[in-house]
Amino acid sequence: MRPNALRRLKAEDKPIVNAWLSIGAAYAAEAIAHQGFDAATIDCQHGMIGFDTAIAMLQAVSSTPAIPLVRPSGLNAAEIMRFLDAGSYGIICPMISTAEDAARLVAACRYPPAGDRSFGPARGMLYGGADYLDHANDEILVLAMIETRQGLANLDAILAVEGLDGIYVGPNDLGLALGHRPLNEPESGPVAEAIELVRARTDEVGLISGIFCSNGEAASMRIAQGFDLVTPGNDAALLRVAMASAVKQARQ
Amino acid sequence: MRPNALRRLKAEDKPIVNAWLSIGAAYAAEAIAHQGFDAATIDCQHGMIGFDTAIAMLQAVSSTPAIPLVRPSGLNAAEIMRFLDAGSYGIICPMISTAEDAARLVAACRYPPAGDRSFGPARGMLYGGADYLDHANDEILVLAMIETRQGLANLDAILAVEGLDGIYVGPNDLGLALGHRPLNEPESGPVAEAIELVRARTDEVGLISGIFCSNGEAASMRIAQGFDLVTPGNDAALLRVAMASAVKQARQ
Amino acid sequence: MRPNALRRLKAEDKPIVNAWLSIGAAYAAEAIAHQGFDAATIDCQHGMIGFDTAIAMLQAVSSTPAIPLVRPSGLNAAEIMRFLDAGSYGIICPMISTAEDAARLVAACRYPPAGDRSFGPARGMLYGGADYLDHANDEILVLAMIETRQGLANLDAILAVEGLDGIYVGPNDLGLALGHRPLNEPESGPVAEAIELVRARTDEVGLISGIFCSNGEAASMRIAQGFDLVTPGNDAALLRVAMASAVKQARQ
Amino acid sequence: MRPNALRRLKAEDKPIVNAWLSIGAAYAAEAIAHQGFDAATIDCQHGMIGFDTAIAMLQAVSSTPAIPLVRPSGLNAAEIMRFLDAGSYGIICPMISTAEDAARLVAACRYPPAGDRSFGPARGMLYGGADYLDHANDEILVLAMIETRQGLANLDAILAVEGLDGIYVGPNDLGLALGHRPLNEPESGPVAEAIELVRARTDEVGLISGIFCSNGEAASMRIAQGFDLVTPGNDAALLRVAMASAVKQARQ
Amino acid sequence: MRPNALRRLKAEDKPIVNAWLSIGAAYAAEAIAHQGFDAATIDCQHGMIGFDTAIAMLQAVSSTPAIPLVRPSGLNAAEIMRFLDAGSYGIICPMISTAEDAARLVAACRYPPAGDRSFGPARGMLYGGADYLDHANDEILVLAMIETRQGLANLDAILAVEGLDGIYVGPNDLGLALGHRPLNEPESGPVAEAIELVRARTDEVGLISGIFCSNGEAASMRIAQGFDLVTPGNDAALLRVAMASAVKQARQ
Amino acid sequence: MRPNALRRLKAEDKPIVNAWLSIGAAYAAEAIAHQGFDAATIDCQHGMIGFDTAIAMLQAVSSTPAIPLVRPSGLNAAEIMRFLDAGSYGIICPMISTAEDAARLVAACRYPPAGDRSFGPARGMLYGGADYLDHANDEILVLAMIETRQGLANLDAILAVEGLDGIYVGPNDLGLALGHRPLNEPESGPVAEAIELVRARTDEVGLISGIFCSNGEAASMRIAQGFDLVTPGNDAALLRVAMASAVKQARQ
Repeated sequence: MRPNALRRLKAEDKPIVNAWLSIGAAYAAEAIAHQGFDAATIDCQHGMIGFDTAIAMLQAVSSTPAIPLVRPSGLNAAEIMRFLDAGSYGIICPMISTAEDAARLVAACRYPPAGDRSFGPARGMLYGGADYLDHANDEILVLAMIETRQGLANLDAILAVEGLDGIYVGPNDLGLALGHRPLNEPESGPVAEAIELVRARTDEVGLISGIFCSNGEAASMRIAQGFDLVTPGNDAALLRVAMASAVKQARQ
Repeated sequence: MRPNALRRLKAEDKPIVNAWLSIGAAYAAEAIAHQGFDAATIDCQHGMIGFDTAIAMLQAVSSTPAIPLVRPSGLNAAEIMRFLDAGSYGIICPMISTAEDAARLVAACRYPPAGDRSFGPARGMLYGGADYLDHANDEILVLAMIETRQGLANLDAILAVEGLDGIYVGPNDLGLALGHRPLNEPESGPVAEAIELVRARTDEVGLISGIFCSNGEAASMRIAQGFDLVTPGNDAALLRVAMASAVKQARQ
Repeated sequence: MRPNALRRLKAEDKPIVNAWLSIGAAYAAEAIAHQGFDAATIDCQHGMIGFDTAIAMLQAVSSTPAIPLVRPSGLNAAEIMRFLDAGSYGIICPMISTAEDAARLVAACRYPPAGDRSFGPARGMLYGGADYLDHANDEILVLAMIETRQGLANLDAILAVEGLDGIYVGPNDLGLALGHRPLNEPESGPVAEAIELVRARTDEVGLISGIFCSNGEAASMRIAQGFDLVTPGNDAALLRVAMASAVKQARQ
Repeated sequence: MRPNALRRLKAEDKPIVNAWLSIGAAYAAEAIAHQGFDAATIDCQHGMIGFDTAIAMLQAVSSTPAIPLVRPSGLNAAEIMRFLDAGSYGIICPMISTAEDAARLVAACRYPPAGDRSFGPARGMLYGGADYLDHANDEILVLAMIETRQGLANLDAILAVEGLDGIYVGPNDLGLALGHRPLNEPESGPVAEAIELVRARTDEVGLISGIFCSNGEAASMRIAQGFDLVTPGNDAALLRVAMASAVKQARQ
Repeated sequence: MRPNALRRLKAEDKPIVNAWLSIGAAYAAEAIAHQGFDAATIDCQHGMIGFDTAIAMLQAVSSTPAIPLVRPSGLNAAEIMRFLDAGSYGIICPMISTAEDAARLVAACRYPPAGDRSFGPARGMLYGGADYLDHANDEILVLAMIETRQGLANLDAILAVEGLDGIYVGPNDLGLALGHRPLNEPESGPVAEAIELVRARTDEVGLISGIFCSNGEAASMRIAQGFDLVTPGNDAALLRVAMASAVKQARQ
Repeated sequence: MRPNALRRLKAEDKPIVNAWLSIGAAYAAEAIAHQGFDAATIDCQHGMIGFDTAIAMLQAVSSTPAIPLVRPSGLNAAEIMRFLDAGSYGIICPMISTAEDAARLVAACRYPPAGDRSFGPARGMLYGGADYLDHANDEILVLAMIETRQGLANLDAILAVEGLDGIYVGPNDLGLALGHRPLNEPESGPVAEAIELVRARTDEVGLISGIFCSNGEAASMRIAQGFDLVTPGNDAALLRVAMASAVKQARQ
């Protein structure tokens, strides 16, 4: 099976830079995934992407060096299994608030006896190889998003769930949950402290700590802070900024 | 009929800033068209966009302040009529090399007796209004791309074609045609001179002079040069740059 | 944020006429939404519409005066949030049978602390505006469908749920649930009484009372009865009738 | 091969009632084709329908009693062959103005030696049967649209083209070409006379005379006038009327 | 209502041969469904098929003699109802492990009072007929997949659920669940015994026993063993084998 | 630029085995392209594939070892350029009958001064690399289909066209053109002789000789005959055979 390069990067303590794909276009996915990213996550929670389009985007990313990941719409085992069958090499699952949530997430991503994933890795085998079944439980990454008050409270229990590979912080939702405006990089205060807490605890148990960032500069700061996996902005936001900037420059 | 705001901008001698859409995603089209552009052109020549997707993109742009335009794959009257029926408020037609080409282009965009456009403006009426037929010949913009050696040679004859609203320079193809590397903004030499020649002649006859530019800065320079309509880069290129830059910043 | 015109209509005690979209075509959605409707609901429960198509339909409706609403396939929080992110300005949720159902529905539609909607309003901000987050909780409409025996029994408790904006009667399912044939406008009997009961109680608490109707005449009757929001038939049914009628007339 | 029921209807001198499909949705196509039509034409000239969608619509119509036809975007042999391969049982080709046009149209629809259609009837064989090649030249209908001044002038020469099965009048374009407003059923004057002329000459040579009509009543009138094939309005127009009428009735 | 031919085959004790569709293409679905199958199941669990594509595939199968079935992604009532509304004549539901699961599955497929299916059979009526509501509860097939350890343990309770029409064995998942490698046709051992147990018990209560098989030969063996419904391999696997074999033969 | 492996195979005198893709599904394309083929041709002439789907298929093939080729619907320069921009590494153009046809085909595939291809290789650069422009004229394969009487007559003139890389025989159309039933492998007679003539002449001038074959055995025979590039059947036909065979075996 094609090794999940993200595991090697973590093992070598190298930062993982992850693209965030919310535009429902396989061409954009492919173009982005060629820009030097280690991973590319198809966002099926907040992205404008149905399942038919997500398959095409997974195929597009498969022709690039980036490892394809998916954020499902929620903790829905059947949906998660579909994305894995479609060739996703990892899941970033939103709204994991309890150890039980985390256990259900892991179970959806692992074949028995480690979990209860159903067998039928259609594109998974095309991307991963003929020995997919033998190694999928070891290669597929499972990341839980910590973004609720409850998730924060249960952090240690979540981190203790067997088979979880790491966490991914959603600073916007976490901020909202803690009573603040969504802000990816609060400089200080409870949200900033919560983010650092999550990172530190995850680091202590040796798992991957990931986080969404506003842009490349912020991502660099998060790497310096010790995060393993950073997402330097999402495609639609960066595109809007780039286009708005082009208009402004043109009108000067 | 909804007036074609681009005509007013030209009349008021204000620059027209035009978005270039090559990503086949209606969400990206909509997001971009909200960034301050006067027009947004769906590129069905070099863009990764089939007709089914182009319709959705036209609808998406219709909900924004930007005027929807289309670049068809070539001088194909049936295809051009389809895009007009789908609600495009203008055509930027590639590879116009002779006055006859230009006349055929105009004919495809105008109802009889001015041309031979077939009647059936399905989305055209939804976007333009119930009196579409009465005003479409006056509102729809027809721009001819000058990008071949022959087109350059026939420039005056092309500009003299009744009903043509302007030209649009494709510097890459023009450069290639003249034996140079594709370069949007050559500083000097025959391609730069040809571009200026096209602009000046078009200006003399009072038509719209448009041009594709690498980015916002270049577009600003082209406006200063006297161009009426500028395209500050295409979406896929700007997105690639923005994403590549985000990766680099993250890895610092 | 673009105000939700439906709230103003309710405040002014004007009837809301709502289109029902079950044909999976953005062009049909756009054409219909231009016919004088106040709202247009994309039916993702019984309509032939996947998520990829629903996004395109939301974009199409966004270019018209009608306010876009969605009926999700069921009380699925992740799915509901996706439709809101895609720009729906309201949710008509099927099969709400208990106050707890209603509370979960409201929570899915409201950002913390009022609910637990996750942050990422991709198209929502394009349609609503940059200040979407500040006002979305106030503008997005949340309507619960009362169409089960249990829902009827729990009506008062459902209406008391903080944040619910109103109810929507599904006469067909309600009739089936009460042991009758599906019939949108029963003249008398338990189903007719149940419909009137729902309307009256909803009216008493000042919320929006909505209902599906067979056609325009029936909708007019429902407005006269006191309903605030009426749906004069669904698109596919009206189209079938119109086409069948055209055939018959042609064959005369 | 499945016989083309339209030929039998013509032979029995029974009117052919044809649906006009401009909404790009296979569900709408299927629903319409079940309403009693003899044929259903997918309009790829003025309809909002790309090739991917047209295939799905052809499949949808194939499950109904209606015979599937296509109007291509123009006289483009490669495009026409694609629609035939996709299972269309006939072509209504726009803008046939000369005998040479008509001959090229026929050639595109007939296998050698009668024409130069390329072999590869993918869906054609699924819909038509395994012996498709043996009978396709006899079953596929070829109708030329007469809608230009030139086409009118060349009517007899067009009708004399071997292999042509009939004509189809586009009253809107014909009216425009003759200097009038588009009107499907002019009561008198040159356009009405031209329409009758086309019908009469076509009848004299025993071919099918078809015409687009505003609605069922108009179609009935055209049948009374002697037309063989009538189209009682297009789907989008009838849907708009039905929906606008429902709104008005609701607001009474 | 169009009778569900699979019920007749079961009544006549004739084997049901079922195609398995995992390729997301309506053309492939239609071509396959013409090859002599009694049924064709669109696999929305492990197949590369979103809802928009599934609708098109259901339409394609509707034009063939094969009865259209769907495997949903899981026991999700809202999703199951959508597939039935879209014209599926039966559901093969994965991962049914308890009598309660089976009861929920049946309820999703039956109108009240037998279940709680919501009313709105859009394409169901196009395929089934105008009297769909009167007979759907009798015609729609409901098959539960037995593929977990728990499902095996609860087999008798599951088979006793009122309204269930039969079971369908997923040998791969069942094998995995029992601690073995996925293998469709184990010759002996606990998985082979479990498969035979399920078949025998299902047979005893007179329900349909179905099973997925590797290919035609294996399916023939399963029929001989007493299974009522067999699936001789899935489309993608058979296509891969056929194409790989063609390459090998070519290279000889 | 990624080298076109097919050129190397020709240089090393190794046979090129080419898959033929007529099913409009990117998943099928990807699965097939992994089965050991050297190339995979997306058939946009007789295949059930629109441009939107073709892009997705090109992306899918790009993630496999097979070189992506396209057969356009005809000799349409604008369409051919679109497929090249979308990442096709070669064109197999139908119905080339004269040297002029061949010259126009070559021109559409080559940048100036060798041809008149317009610049904008969107996906071409993603697949080929950043130096695409420098090498595309050398790497892109241009094959002309010889399948008409006229094409046969003009064979030598066609083969002499500068820039043509080879020919591809369409035995079905060639047979039809010569007055015979379509047959891929006629054992003897004029069609067999014509095929051998085309092969021999092409071989003499050192160009690639390709041919469509019924299946793997036939392809092996064609290789033995001296053909350089063989297509062992098309996907839909092989799938139909495999599925029909599975049904038959199951029913034994």
